[in-house]
Amino acid sequence: MAILEVFLLLFAVQFGVESKPITYNTSQGIVTGKLNVHLVPHTHDDVGWLKTVDQYFVGSNNSIQGACVRNVLDSLVPALLADRNRKFIYVEQAFFQRWWREQGEIVQDIVKKLVYSGQLELINGGMCMHDEAATHYIDMIDQTTLGHRFIKQEFDQTPRIGWQIDPFGHSAVQAYLLGAEVGFDSLFFARIDYQDREKRKGEKTLEFVWRGSKTLGSSAQIFSGAFPANYEPPSDEFYFEVNDASPIVQDDMDLFDYNVQDRVDAFVAAAMSQANITRTNHIMWTMGTDFKYQYAHTWFREMDKFIHYVNKDGRVNALYSTPSIYTDAKFVANQSWPLKTNDFFPYADRINAYWTGYFTSRPALKRYVRTMSAYYLAARQLEFFKGRNKLRPNTDTLADALAIAQHHDAVSGTEKQHVANDYAKRLSIGYVEAEELVSSSLGCLVESTKSHSCGKPITTFEQCPLLNISYCPPSQLDFTKQKSLVVLVYNPLGWKREDVVRIPVISSSVAVWDASGKEIESQILPIVDASGGMRNEYVKAYLGRSPSDAPKYWLAFVASAPPLGYSSYTVYNAKQTAASSVISSVQTLQGHENGTIEVGQGNLKLIYDKERGKLTQYTNKRNLIKASVEQSYKFYKGHIGNDNDPQVIPQASGAYVFRPNGTYPINTDGEFPMTVLKGPVLNEVHQQINPWISQITRVYKVKEHAEVEFTVGPIPVGDGIGKEIVTQITTNMKTNKTFYTDSNGRDFIKRIRDYREDWDLQVNQPVSGNYYPINLGIYMQDSTTELSVLVDRSLGGSSILDGQIELMLHRRLLYDDSRGVAEALNELVCVDNDCRGLIIRGSFYFRIDPLGEGAKWRRITGQEIYSPFLLAFAEETSGSWAKSHVASFSGIAPSYSLPDNVALITLQELEDGQVLLRLAHLFEVGEDKDLSAMASVELRKLFPTKKISKVTEMNLSANQERAEMEKRRRVWRVEGMLNEEPKVVRGGPVDPAKLVVELSPMEIRTFVIDLE
Amino acid sequence: MAILEVFLLLFAVQFGVESKPITYNTSQGIVTGKLNVHLVPHTHDDVGWLKTVDQYFVGSNNSIQGACVRNVLDSLVPALLADRNRKFIYVEQAFFQRWWREQGEIVQDIVKKLVYSGQLELINGGMCMHDEAATHYIDMIDQTTLGHRFIKQEFDQTPRIGWQIDPFGHSAVQAYLLGAEVGFDSLFFARIDYQDREKRKGEKTLEFVWRGSKTLGSSAQIFSGAFPANYEPPSDEFYFEVNDASPIVQDDMDLFDYNVQDRVDAFVAAAMSQANITRTNHIMWTMGTDFKYQYAHTWFREMDKFIHYVNKDGRVNALYSTPSIYTDAKFVANQSWPLKTNDFFPYADRINAYWTGYFTSRPALKRYVRTMSAYYLAARQLEFFKGRNKLRPNTDTLADALAIAQHHDAVSGTEKQHVANDYAKRLSIGYVEAEELVSSSLGCLVESTKSHSCGKPITTFEQCPLLNISYCPPSQLDFTKQKSLVVLVYNPLGWKREDVVRIPVISSSVAVWDASGKEIESQILPIVDASGGMRNEYVKAYLGRSPSDAPKYWLAFVASAPPLGYSSYTVYNAKQTAASSVISSVQTLQGHENGTIEVGQGNLKLIYDKERGKLTQYTNKRNLIKASVEQSYKFYKGHIGNDNDPQVIPQASGAYVFRPNGTYPINTDGEFPMTVLKGPVLNEVHQQINPWISQITRVYKVKEHAEVEFTVGPIPVGDGIGKEIVTQITTNMKTNKTFYTDSNGRDFIKRIRDYREDWDLQVNQPVSGNYYPINLGIYMQDSTTELSVLVDRSLGGSSILDGQIELMLHRRLLYDDSRGVAEALNELVCVDNDCRGLIIRGSFYFRIDPLGEGAKWRRITGQEIYSPFLLAFAEETSGSWAKSHVASFSGIAPSYSLPDNVALITLQELEDGQVLLRLAHLFEVGEDKDLSAMASVELRKLFPTKKISKVTEMNLSANQERAEMEKRRRVWRVEGMLNEEPKVVRGGPVDPAKLVVELSPMEIRTFVIDLE
Repeated sequence: MAILEVFLLLFAVQFGVESKPITYNTSQGIVTGKLNVHLVPHTHDDVGWLKTVDQYFVGSNNSIQGACVRNVLDSLVPALLADRNRKFIYVEQAFFQRWWREQGEIVQDIVKKLVYSGQLELINGGMCMHDEAATHYIDMIDQTTLGHRFIKQEFDQTPRIGWQIDPFGHSAVQAYLLGAEVGFDSLFFARIDYQDREKRKGEKTLEFVWRGSKTLGSSAQIFSGAFPANYEPPSDEFYFEVNDASPIVQDDMDLFDYNVQDRVDAFVAAAMSQANITRTNHIMWTMGTDFKYQYAHTWFREMDKFIHYVNKDGRVNALYSTPSIYTDAKFVANQSWPLKTNDFFPYADRINAYWTGYFTSRPALKRYVRTMSAYYLAARQLEFFKGRNKLRPNTDTLADALAIAQHHDAVSGTEKQHVANDYAKRLSIGYVEAEELVSSSLGCLVESTKSHSCGKPITTFEQCPLLNISYCPPSQLDFTKQKSLVVLVYNPLGWKREDVVRIPVISSSVAVWDASGKEIESQILPIVDASGGMRNEYVKAYLGRSPSDAPKYWLAFVASAPPLGYSSYTVYNAKQTAASSVISSVQTLQGHENGTIEVGQGNLKLIYDKERGKLTQYTNKRNLIKASVEQSYKFYKGHIGNDNDPQVIPQASGAYVFRPNGTYPINTDGEFPMTVLKGPVLNEVHQQINPWISQITRVYKVKEHAEVEFTVGPIPVGDGIGKEIVTQITTNMKTNKTFYTDSNGRDFIKRIRDYREDWDLQVNQPVSGNYYPINLGIYMQDSTTELSVLVDRSLGGSSILDGQIELMLHRRLLYDDSRGVAEALNELVCVDNDCRGLIIRGSFYFRIDPLGEGAKWRRITGQEIYSPFLLAFAEETSGSWAKSHVASFSGIAPSYSLPDNVALITLQELEDGQVLLRLAHLFEVGEDKDLSAMASVELRKLFPTKKISKVTEMNLSANQERAEMEKRRRVWRVEGMLNEEPKVVRGGPVDPAKLVVELSPMEIRTFVIDLE
Repeated sequence: MAILEVFLLLFAVQFGVESKPITYNTSQGIVTGKLNVHLVPHTHDDVGWLKTVDQYFVGSNNSIQGACVRNVLDSLVPALLADRNRKFIYVEQAFFQRWWREQGEIVQDIVKKLVYSGQLELINGGMCMHDEAATHYIDMIDQTTLGHRFIKQEFDQTPRIGWQIDPFGHSAVQAYLLGAEVGFDSLFFARIDYQDREKRKGEKTLEFVWRGSKTLGSSAQIFSGAFPANYEPPSDEFYFEVNDASPIVQDDMDLFDYNVQDRVDAFVAAAMSQANITRTNHIMWTMGTDFKYQYAHTWFREMDKFIHYVNKDGRVNALYSTPSIYTDAKFVANQSWPLKTNDFFPYADRINAYWTGYFTSRPALKRYVRTMSAYYLAARQLEFFKGRNKLRPNTDTLADALAIAQHHDAVSGTEKQHVANDYAKRLSIGYVEAEELVSSSLGCLVESTKSHSCGKPITTFEQCPLLNISYCPPSQLDFTKQKSLVVLVYNPLGWKREDVVRIPVISSSVAVWDASGKEIESQILPIVDASGGMRNEYVKAYLGRSPSDAPKYWLAFVASAPPLGYSSYTVYNAKQTAASSVISSVQTLQGHENGTIEVGQGNLKLIYDKERGKLTQYTNKRNLIKASVEQSYKFYKGHIGNDNDPQVIPQASGAYVFRPNGTYPINTDGEFPMTVLKGPVLNEVHQQINPWISQITRVYKVKEHAEVEFTVGPIPVGDGIGKEIVTQITTNMKTNKTFYTDSNGRDFIKRIRDYREDWDLQVNQPVSGNYYPINLGIYMQDSTTELSVLVDRSLGGSSILDGQIELMLHRRLLYDDSRGVAEALNELVCVDNDCRGLIIRGSFYFRIDPLGEGAKWRRITGQEIYSPFLLAFAEETSGSWAKSHVASFSGIAPSYSLPDNVALITLQELEDGQVLLRLAHLFEVGEDKDLSAMASVELRKLFPTKKISKVTEMNLSANQERAEMEKRRRVWRVEGMLNEEPKVVRGGPVDPAKLVVELSPMEIRTFVIDLE
């Protein structure tokens, strides 16, 4: 260490102030009584956007964008060493970790010193600056945890600041959960609605206290600041990247163009201007922007001079700072701040420019991210059961891939196509590794009760990630050849559950037995041709090979699995067995008949008008709901941005911005046949809506909601017009402009059409200005009922008319929307150089409940949709698989189950063998009369085979003890609030003797558990 | 020093190979038997072009061009420290010295180590990479010396390589004088004619031995290389500036897009391609270009990888190198090289693109540079006589300004207008300081014989830099008020000389006395109105103030001054004295008369046709020359570059390129009156050629040449057409396509129209392709006579028809010629925001001699034109100034004079008190029957008042002893030359006892002399 200190000293001497002919005094701190200009040197490094994350890191593909993060970090170290007053914040851990891995020990030691001294502050600290609209809160937590734990481990630091400077609107969950619950002292961002910003500038309310959660209220509030303009320097006079055109401070009197006074004047003027819209005498200058500081020296050299000369001038006080220092100064100022609730969606940066298109952009990527998110959750459970393997296979690759996919130009869909491909490729690589781990963990589990000592199991389980297009080679077994198929159904949820499993088979003559050898009810449904075509094309596109013969049938049966456990089912050739699957009845309606057809074997019935081929009514015989419901499709023409008004900046609809240019119904009354399949497990209604939209509506006997599986695309654009496809569910409910959408799949927020809580909205886009992101679902209410829709991925939706809900399912556009991506959102799928528009298949789920009863379905079914059964397949010939194997399993204590209102959202073995556990209460206060209550979980039951030696409650990102975090939490003064703050109830501390965790509504509690 | 070594070690450890997870072996040297790819990292930093030198240095004005040399040098130091195998060459001392001044001692020590170790090699080493067409050899020597002596002083290094990679054509003087005579081992450049280059590539003759001087032949030859394309990396795949788009070597297997083999293949392919056009197995890659290495790390990082992986691959050998190492390798290869004589003018980079416009571009700047060059020479003499002052005023500022004005985008005229203004401003600032020094030195000299002990003299001399526009406040004395004017006439030449002095006066009633009090003949010439108008406008433009009343007369008299000395003359009111100046007779010819008028009081007579108002005949009664001579003007329309031929790249005439689009005579037969002034000193013929061209032809009684002072401009462009103005001297000589132009004012080179010595010329521009730069003069011969023209600045000229010489005097163009300057060459002069095209005033001189007798006039008068009398003025009222002052002076021994064939081109006191002396033989071998002979100079006579303690002969740039240089000189094998090399005679060593310097033809000898 001594040698390093010599090094640091020498470096300081060499580049520092001591030896320079011109010496700059950069040591200034805060000066009370002066306007303090906090210069915050930073770089904003997108974890993929126009280039892939690796291209940004290494600086390749610069013809697209000149950007190289390796340069930034390489050049930063000497620049910080050169002057101990210089500071820098670094944000994106995906880049930082790439760089860190390449460094030798000496550089690592130097950087650690820089971090310890506060010169280099790692803030935000997730792997990426995640999006806030299209991200699920579990993914946000996971990617933040990944970054935060790395920082904790390598630097013993906990990031103090939320720094979401670029995402396109800001969510309530970001503020309270990924902000306050992570332990951040403040949250900064740049993008809020232009109308909102103008008002806030006038009222000096760009900084405020944000309470994102109705339920957790002041217990999870955070001091937040929206920047006056963007996250760049205050004007074009203060950019100092190599070759930037801002005037430098020329202070060498021996050279021409000496300009110190001129530059100081410009600095002071910019500072005064910002001071006029800011409370307290502290303002922050974000000194940097995208991928800057490639040669960090150039920025610091100029900032050194500004600090020196501006302070010599004396009108304002300039200092090197960080958001932490700035936040501390704001706190010390003891100012009252306005209160902000809810969120900052939707975001428009100017008239006609609502960034609500990206809620849906790249729906296939969004779905892939969601699928992998759930898979990662399940895989970590199975990794824990098997025992974590430091060598591969493990879940780390998938963790990394998922983490960067949360970036605000990743799952958001606002990246270039080749970058979207890169995210998908990374997910795929991560999946393949996790799949191997999952298979082997399941193999171990079926072969032994002592799972932890399993090496390489004999049983080889295969999985079917392309099941949604009926591609599942292991299930296409020829059962006539004495083979049977073991279907392992793993349930990642903390409660027992039953659900319908559907697998493609080549024979209709099959039977399904459960683990006890009992035959269970099953149903055969023919696979329609259209699906076969898509299967061939997409398997070729994804796997590069043509699939074998298409299966002809879906086999469906109701499977049930214990909490965190599996059941196994065996599919046999029916001829070997007494019983057989029921083959569905098929009824094709050509649209010439009158009358209705009723669909549904259980409580829920859907009634269709035969002539129009359309859903008309919804009934539930259990709760006596009866409602008129229609479901239809329409499209918006994407605006091409040909505005003639010279006052208005032209705006096309594109990857970011949704700007419709007219609404076009897709009317198919009776034009296409409707086919109804019925059987004991489920009924299906197949509808071809038009040549490029079809759907299958499923009503399961055991469920009280309808599932609509839509297939949209290729959207035709031969007419030169981009199209954005929505589906609408229309009722005659009187919803009074009001609907509810979730925040990152967690809290529901009330939305009122053409209205904003914070300002008097000037409506210029009556459709896109009312769009909100949907991750979990959307619902609306009238005086007696509520209609809820749940989704299988993030998308945009709204209620444009009372009684109606619409979801945007797919977008294909031909113009770029001028926000930098410089590509039209025109996704293609190519096979042998033949490219066609992307087809999207997905599902949404809807249900009508009596008023006040919908939350239970939304929350619990929402969790089931997020975490479907994980299916694994094995072939067997013995005929007695269940006898020789552990045919069912639960990871938790027998007969124990999590409460209905609690989900286990993380169960993960950490690198050091500790266990990371997160439990989430699923309900908000007042949401459900029974379930919006305190819940409790017995930890011992979760680890039945192990002894808990220690339980440490952590903050959300598990980089600090919760108690420590709470101790440090600051109480900000809120305008108009005196001492009447409502008391927020939270679960109490965990008694080490009882080991019971209490969870209050919306509470998520994170534990690190030591097991013996 | 120990602490620095620790520092270096640590640095090496930190950034070097030892600690990196990926280690690169960059230690490779030359490998015999393999193709060696010499990677030569370099930056090409124009000392002004689109931005001023200071703007380039500090990185301001980046909106014009992103460039900051401070970044280059700041970032270079750590990059070199990081790996001792890395190398870099730095070229432009103007930048290097600016940077050096800003560094503290520690950095300076580190850089010294880098230089000593050879990691950082300072090559070329002048203040700038001087132009080779528009520069005078004295300026080239001075600016090179300035840089070389700094390098010697700070680093004890002598640059080994000439590196003229960007100038637009290459001169013979550069090769033999500024190359071989400086002691360079080789000379590299990029720009040669595209036809020449193609041939050389095919014949592998891009590298050769260049003998630039007929006279000095092999004794001043240099190994030279023209690059295969330019001075950049071999293809667009090898640029590594921050944000450059070349593919980097991605060798981190943990990241995507690993591409090592692909990059190695590209490297090898590029190397093989270059090897195919190169002799020996050594090729050089110039790894850099304009203003690159702003973050040097980015280049070295990639080159490290290339060296590592390419050598691992093994097909070729890649190494860090410098031109020195490369030259050594070429020498060791013991190859024979082709011989090159003469020069590389003119330069065309493609069809229609002859870079011959810049020979004339910005004629006012070119004249200003020439004037200042001569002034600097004289001022240094006077500085020496007074004793050098380390404090101001001294000549250093002017030296610096002149040095950078030699840059190949400075005096060349190819810079942006604001940059041209900057050069002029610097010259002006330097001049003002030197003027103060000169005045004070002259003051000292007139006040005391012991000049070295002079402090601040009482006598205040004023000088008149705007004399050419008759602005000279001190001479506009009101002589009636008992005042008289002392005119000190300083002669910087080494021989006694007489010349006509002309000064503006307000009264015609004056008389001139010499220092002995004897009245001398003088003549009064009325000043014409046109000049008065220009005087007012340009004084306002240059000085920002309106001049006082215009003088009405020129007073002319023949002054005579001793070598390196002055005489003084006094101008009195004629009424005080017996005699008076002769008032010229004035005859105005309206063009209606027949017959001729003869002009000239001495041997030379010019005969004009009265009716046409034109010169028709030239006679010299001494040598009986009688010749028909016409002199006229015409203009070329500047091509606007509207080529339709898709095969041809459009090309306009512009700052660089001369591309005429038709020739237009300026016919004025009898249209304007011609005025003839006659008197005892000189006769003048005033002709208004057209509304914007006038001229005064002067025939002096004591001279046998005609002087033509032209005034051209503002060139009208209201017709949208740029124009390039030439004057032609037309005879009926039979010149057989042949003419002679000087090389940088030194050697004359034979030119043959439409012909190149080195290849079979494809003529596509019959005018501009025959243009050559003229610094001293141009001449042509027939069987009996030779006609010589001398110029007062650099310009372009040719002989487009036999018997005719043309000079391009001025250019005003409206289109940019696409070579980067991005401005049309449209010079304006603005007064109170009223801008008009620039007016050019200048002179050329012509004379006809019997064949073989012209050289004497060209050489001696050429020297007099270069170094005119330096005039200084003082007012006096005593009436007996000469008695109370030292009225005449010579710096050398009384009655001593340099031989007619020798010029003193440097006499300068160095910083350490030593004296730098340069003597130049002015004649080539065979040029004059008497003067092309060995000459000798007695050094003791040059320092009559001091004792010479030591004389050290130096190389041309005075950074090494000549003997050492000769010892190191390499003998390159020349193709076809065996041992029949003609012996070159040179002056012998200086005998310390005799102290006589012998000078052979064209020899320049440089001495550092210690005086006691």
